[in-house]
Amino acid sequence: MRSALIQPSKKRVIIIGAGFGGLQAARGLARAPVEVVVIDRRNHHLFQPLLYQVATAGLAPSEIAYPIRAILRRQTNARVLMDEAVAVDLPNRQVVLKASGAMRYDFLILAPGAVDFYFGHEDWRQYARGLKRLEDAVAIRREILLTFENAERACQTGTLARPLTIVLIGAGPTGVELAGAVAELAYGVAAKEFRFVDLRQAKIILIEAANQILPSMDAGLAAWAEAELKRLGVEVRTGKAVTSIGPNFVCLDSERIDADLILWTAGVAGSPLLKTLGVPLARGGRVPVEADLSVPGYPEVFVIGDAAYLVDRDQRPIPGLAPAAIQQGRHVARNILNALENRPSKPFHYIDKGSLVVVGRARAIADLGRLKFRGFLAWLLWVFVHIFYLIGFRNRLLVLTEWAWAFFTRQSGSRLITEYGFDDRQRAE
Amino acid sequence: MRSALIQPSKKRVIIIGAGFGGLQAARGLARAPVEVVVIDRRNHHLFQPLLYQVATAGLAPSEIAYPIRAILRRQTNARVLMDEAVAVDLPNRQVVLKASGAMRYDFLILAPGAVDFYFGHEDWRQYARGLKRLEDAVAIRREILLTFENAERACQTGTLARPLTIVLIGAGPTGVELAGAVAELAYGVAAKEFRFVDLRQAKIILIEAANQILPSMDAGLAAWAEAELKRLGVEVRTGKAVTSIGPNFVCLDSERIDADLILWTAGVAGSPLLKTLGVPLARGGRVPVEADLSVPGYPEVFVIGDAAYLVDRDQRPIPGLAPAAIQQGRHVARNILNALENRPSKPFHYIDKGSLVVVGRARAIADLGRLKFRGFLAWLLWVFVHIFYLIGFRNRLLVLTEWAWAFFTRQSGSRLITEYGFDDRQRAE
Repeated sequence: MRSALIQPSKKRVIIIGAGFGGLQAARGLARAPVEVVVIDRRNHHLFQPLLYQVATAGLAPSEIAYPIRAILRRQTNARVLMDEAVAVDLPNRQVVLKASGAMRYDFLILAPGAVDFYFGHEDWRQYARGLKRLEDAVAIRREILLTFENAERACQTGTLARPLTIVLIGAGPTGVELAGAVAELAYGVAAKEFRFVDLRQAKIILIEAANQILPSMDAGLAAWAEAELKRLGVEVRTGKAVTSIGPNFVCLDSERIDADLILWTAGVAGSPLLKTLGVPLARGGRVPVEADLSVPGYPEVFVIGDAAYLVDRDQRPIPGLAPAAIQQGRHVARNILNALENRPSKPFHYIDKGSLVVVGRARAIADLGRLKFRGFLAWLLWVFVHIFYLIGFRNRLLVLTEWAWAFFTRQSGSRLITEYGFDDRQRAE
Repeated sequence: MRSALIQPSKKRVIIIGAGFGGLQAARGLARAPVEVVVIDRRNHHLFQPLLYQVATAGLAPSEIAYPIRAILRRQTNARVLMDEAVAVDLPNRQVVLKASGAMRYDFLILAPGAVDFYFGHEDWRQYARGLKRLEDAVAIRREILLTFENAERACQTGTLARPLTIVLIGAGPTGVELAGAVAELAYGVAAKEFRFVDLRQAKIILIEAANQILPSMDAGLAAWAEAELKRLGVEVRTGKAVTSIGPNFVCLDSERIDADLILWTAGVAGSPLLKTLGVPLARGGRVPVEADLSVPGYPEVFVIGDAAYLVDRDQRPIPGLAPAAIQQGRHVARNILNALENRPSKPFHYIDKGSLVVVGRARAIADLGRLKFRGFLAWLLWVFVHIFYLIGFRNRLLVLTEWAWAFFTRQSGSRLITEYGFDDRQRAE
């Protein structure tokens, strides 16, 4: 009997979101005497750190996404429900799902992730697409390649009014990695394939409000990364705040940049679902959690990953990175085990293992606390770490094949423009 | 100077469509003293024979599509224009392009392919999606997987009203291959991953109006294929004409089948572009061509592939298959060379190399004229032929990796549901 899998006598743990944190929490409860329900709007876990490679035609979407059911196939106490959580009712201990209605929980782990945040300028969203979802990456890939095709067509039938221009707003890790990959695509493989437009004349502009790119990283490494980006052909403008964005233009304080494509890599905020909790939210729409990652007043509800706001022992907010989410997912699973056995909840401490950022072809920077290095060795470390964390042997194999192919042939991967006949800028979350 | 590539003194050959025929024609003109302009709405060539594997999550879209610019990168007399031909003006020797306007030609090769044809029932299109474009394949993949997810959700929160049902209309090669692959997906890997709905109870029904499946093939092989499909769990109904299709139902003469998903694999017709030629069209909207594949009265205009209608020496119409399109592309390139050198045009003769149809996992039928065989050996031949014709070493490598992985692990490839937030049934061609 399949329905024997429902064991109503067991306590139910609902996990909202199957990102790095949510999946880790589910796995941490594999041997617990609970029923785990993993709820996600998508049927796949997304390896977000490689999303920029899909956006720049280096990898195919399926190489960085993996079905949640396949990941949890062997975990007998877990079930997967593809549905969207629209509200959380903390006093009554239930979540409201779009298709399935209300569902009660004994413990709740909220790991819904983040969405693009336009610092209060919601009208910018329609002009500057962010890179959070697989659909964003496919859309950005299409838009970059269409920009090239349109310029080629303009050059065949007449002339191009001005050099093709792509602007990226925000030089955090995503902005830097994306800018480097766009430059490689435009000046490398694409420049050889377009006969009329000279893509080597294209402008790729990376704008950052802070006085250095990668503001959260070591200044020396950031300076090296900036020099590398410039070597690749990217125009870097630091200390420049964007004052407005419109159709095909970006305004800085005293300057207007006409652009064929504008990409948003500046800010993220917690999922809108968090607003339904009815608790005060911290900066960026995140939930300020207790030291054990629970919601104040609700010890059975935990928030992890990009959705949580917590300062660590050194008073710095824990960053919205995959390693932090993984550590938090593991931690809340342990705290639920503690609660089940009437042991006290333990505070979470973030172990910062450092950060790695790719800058163009086969180069990266590594900031591992005391150890800081850059160049090819840092890139090899980056390859190793990312392949190691990619879920599924099959995906690892395919991604390694793609990367080896790209490295040795200098050819790019899946440069497909697929027409989905939609403008999903209008359907932003 | 890049613009030096335009040589207005040379005669211009426009090729509409970069499918098998169009690309072959372009390559056949590589050394000709002409300017070749390849025009396609897409930036990629699509390997249509493997489209059904994308629709059933066996392959990723980028593994069966390849950028046209990359294919023609080294052909210096060819340029690629991503644009849509909306009309052909035969008397004035020009094509009208959606974005670039009118473009004159000295020779024109029309290879626009085919679209789904609903035998005059245009209202069926919205209920029964066909499988012609990459977008169709991705949409069918999403719909199949969503059907499973919806059934799982229904089973978790209540009960399923009736067994999940997928109906395929038309048992030509595409219908047979798709039905087999859907059965493998539903009863194989998916059945293990869904905990509540029992996918082994799902119904997959293949309907064919003729009295045997694969009507154009040998009756013995078709009977074996039908038995194989039944062994896989597919319900095969031959001699049944569809009388109406509505939202979630299909009516046969005296029977109504309620279905969660209806797929159309029954008929194709020539591209709507052909209607603008102003010449009488044959059955299925194809252009009846002269023996040399030219349009009657216009010896400088050729039609090839799915768009052409021609009976061969044995009075049978040449089938709309990749090998026929390839042979025709090569032939018209030679006839243009003949015309340039004032030699007479030669008639086209189709060399039928036979056909291969996959029926489920590692089994196929091979009808090579006198030689007919089936089973694992036929499947090995199928693998060999398809890998051989796939363009690009990189794609061959990835597809072989995927197939080897699927063969040895019995795992399926990229089971992604991506939400493009659109219903492109409404935007059918």
